[in-house]
Amino acid sequence: MPGRTSAQTNIDVMVMLPRNNTYLFSYQRVSPAIEYAKKILGRDELFAGLKFNVQYQNSACGMDALYALVDKQRDERPDLILGPVCEYTAASVVRVASHWNIPVISAGALATGFNVKGIEYSHLTRIAPTYLKMAETFQAMFGRFGWRTASLIYDDDKDERNCYFTIEGVFTVLSEYNIVTDYAVFNSNEEKVDADGIIASVYGSEVVIMCTKADTVRDLMLAAHRRKLTSDSHIFFNIELFNSSSYGDGSWRRGDKYDNEAKAAYSFLNTVTLLRSTKPEFEEFSMEMKKSLQESDIPVCEDCSAVNMFMEGFHDSLILYATALREVMSNGLTKKNGLEITHNMWNRTFEGIAGQVSVDANGDRNGDFSVVRMTDPEAGTHETVMSYFGENKSFQIMPSFKNEWFNLRTAPSPKHSDPSC
Amino acid sequence: MPGRTSAQTNIDVMVMLPRNNTYLFSYQRVSPAIEYAKKILGRDELFAGLKFNVQYQNSACGMDALYALVDKQRDERPDLILGPVCEYTAASVVRVASHWNIPVISAGALATGFNVKGIEYSHLTRIAPTYLKMAETFQAMFGRFGWRTASLIYDDDKDERNCYFTIEGVFTVLSEYNIVTDYAVFNSNEEKVDADGIIASVYGSEVVIMCTKADTVRDLMLAAHRRKLTSDSHIFFNIELFNSSSYGDGSWRRGDKYDNEAKAAYSFLNTVTLLRSTKPEFEEFSMEMKKSLQESDIPVCEDCSAVNMFMEGFHDSLILYATALREVMSNGLTKKNGLEITHNMWNRTFEGIAGQVSVDANGDRNGDFSVVRMTDPEAGTHETVMSYFGENKSFQIMPSFKNEWFNLRTAPSPKHSDPSC
Repeated sequence: MPGRTSAQTNIDVMVMLPRNNTYLFSYQRVSPAIEYAKKILGRDELFAGLKFNVQYQNSACGMDALYALVDKQRDERPDLILGPVCEYTAASVVRVASHWNIPVISAGALATGFNVKGIEYSHLTRIAPTYLKMAETFQAMFGRFGWRTASLIYDDDKDERNCYFTIEGVFTVLSEYNIVTDYAVFNSNEEKVDADGIIASVYGSEVVIMCTKADTVRDLMLAAHRRKLTSDSHIFFNIELFNSSSYGDGSWRRGDKYDNEAKAAYSFLNTVTLLRSTKPEFEEFSMEMKKSLQESDIPVCEDCSAVNMFMEGFHDSLILYATALREVMSNGLTKKNGLEITHNMWNRTFEGIAGQVSVDANGDRNGDFSVVRMTDPEAGTHETVMSYFGENKSFQIMPSFKNEWFNLRTAPSPKHSDPSC
Repeated sequence: MPGRTSAQTNIDVMVMLPRNNTYLFSYQRVSPAIEYAKKILGRDELFAGLKFNVQYQNSACGMDALYALVDKQRDERPDLILGPVCEYTAASVVRVASHWNIPVISAGALATGFNVKGIEYSHLTRIAPTYLKMAETFQAMFGRFGWRTASLIYDDDKDERNCYFTIEGVFTVLSEYNIVTDYAVFNSNEEKVDADGIIASVYGSEVVIMCTKADTVRDLMLAAHRRKLTSDSHIFFNIELFNSSSYGDGSWRRGDKYDNEAKAAYSFLNTVTLLRSTKPEFEEFSMEMKKSLQESDIPVCEDCSAVNMFMEGFHDSLILYATALREVMSNGLTKKNGLEITHNMWNRTFEGIAGQVSVDANGDRNGDFSVVRMTDPEAGTHETVMSYFGENKSFQIMPSFKNEWFNLRTAPSPKHSDPSC
């Protein structure tokens, strides 16, 4: 055909995800989303001529991903890396990839350390909202409601350290805004958590922000309720970004004798989570994903979405890369211009599978977050009471929101005095 | 000659050190020691047939070392890596080297994380005593003198983090022995250190262990002395492993009006440092090093040794490797059997340039440490009052040692009560 080039560009994509199914971002969960994106791109006239050869590498959420990458001889190196998600795994891979001028897009690597793209992480684009973006939600609430002090309580497993990195984001942002923070840390894998002891240390703080396992959240809320800290003088938050099944209606319920007390305590708990959106096209994607997961023998709940943030993110990664590559190539560059492709992906808003995705000028996705709260203490039902939109830093307050929840009626008492005096 | 093989083995050595002279282990300081070892080996009949090709790579105490390594194609990879010293730099290099079956010997990489050799650090041999080995000195003193509680005070620069890793070793060992620890951390590069506030937090602990800059040690000791904590109820330690010029006689002296007070405070301060030994052969080495340093325009003090632990360590590394390689080769293996060579270096005692070097079964050097203390409070002179020998876990108590220094006469008061009560 005149005026049309039929040259094909082969793009070698190395996907680094764990095979272990306990991860929400395991190979079995995410690969169908990547294959779906590949199919979409293959059907789109706009991307004719781009052929994606996708290879999956078991990252094992450890150093296997790095080893696989460094074993590549010069002429075997991939053109694009998707993943890794785990922080330490991502750090080593992104360093080498950046040095080799290979773009990396991940729905993980959410830690604050990756924010300075500098040299080590120059080629990293983050397609899921980072912990710092999540923390902006807190900063905005602190500003809006005039809170001044926070206690940060977190579970540090000393392995993948998701809660450590989550709270690091909160700490970083609140410190910048001169919020006084105090913290309590434990490792629930190694020790029995002294919930009452921890709660005894939060007297002096207005806001308590927790990141830990669902069972520990319950212990902490029970302890706070028994000490009568839940009303008037303290505001409680739990951060639960990804695992939507571990909070929500009935999360206080364990079938033990404390269920009623826990339900009362939970009526004072706010949960910060990712705001999820859908659109008509999302339905087809969601159906396909459900089918793939069922084929992989991954249990899928009947009445809820089988799609998580990681699946969406890695799907969108391939779309974003293809868009950027096309633009860069139309300017006479090639797939080997890794840094130019990377920068082309930054400061860009595009249509993702679940809605609009906006990547900021630093290559990190802007985040939207919800605050979920029990709105009917009798029935125990939860709903989103407030949303925060990162791109324009605005709140949406839902009709169910009650001002009294976030207004301190009495100042917190000073640090609990020494029992000996 | 009959019965003698003349085959030569070329060994490619990649040395990873920073070019920046502010480091005690800079290229300019350490390379003469490596060249000296090479010369010694070249003259020794025992090692005839081994030819060392040494290449120096600027590690920049950053990721440059990793980049240089991963850029090597399969047939360009070195047979041996010496360094890196900086913890984060070493971590990335040792991972890749271990994966590629290349032995790494370092006089650094002293952090506790490297102790688990497992897979990631399987090929790492540490030729200088690690922070954990240093911490054994404290564990032994706590056992001997019956101390039960410690406050750990450290300066965390959030960059190379030497004091963080130093105190991590102490914390790890003391925790294993059920010593109750408390800690205070600051970053003296970013904040004015509230010495009095920190000292106010140590009331409940018997032993105070510090790792920070010399000026901050002085501020802390002055604060402790003013609060009358220096005698009777508390014992103070400073850890200063390498930079022998920053402690010792007159370290309290600043030429300000607090000199006398500081001198009195320092009469209660114990400094834990590396025990240094010498032997006749050391003199020649020391003279040569002085000459080389002067040629590099590095200032060398007249009446003190120009040799530091890193120079000794990297010298000894090459001797140790050559010894192990020779043995492994005599068993029919080659320089490419990296893991066998590595294991041959472990659990071995040999003559280093400054005395006997004993490497334990985990590939880490056993350490000998000294406790230095002011022995004449009038003159302000310091001397070694106690030494700890890691290999056989024994103390040598010097005649100048006084029992009263380490025996608590009064129990520390409980945590300073809240001023409001």
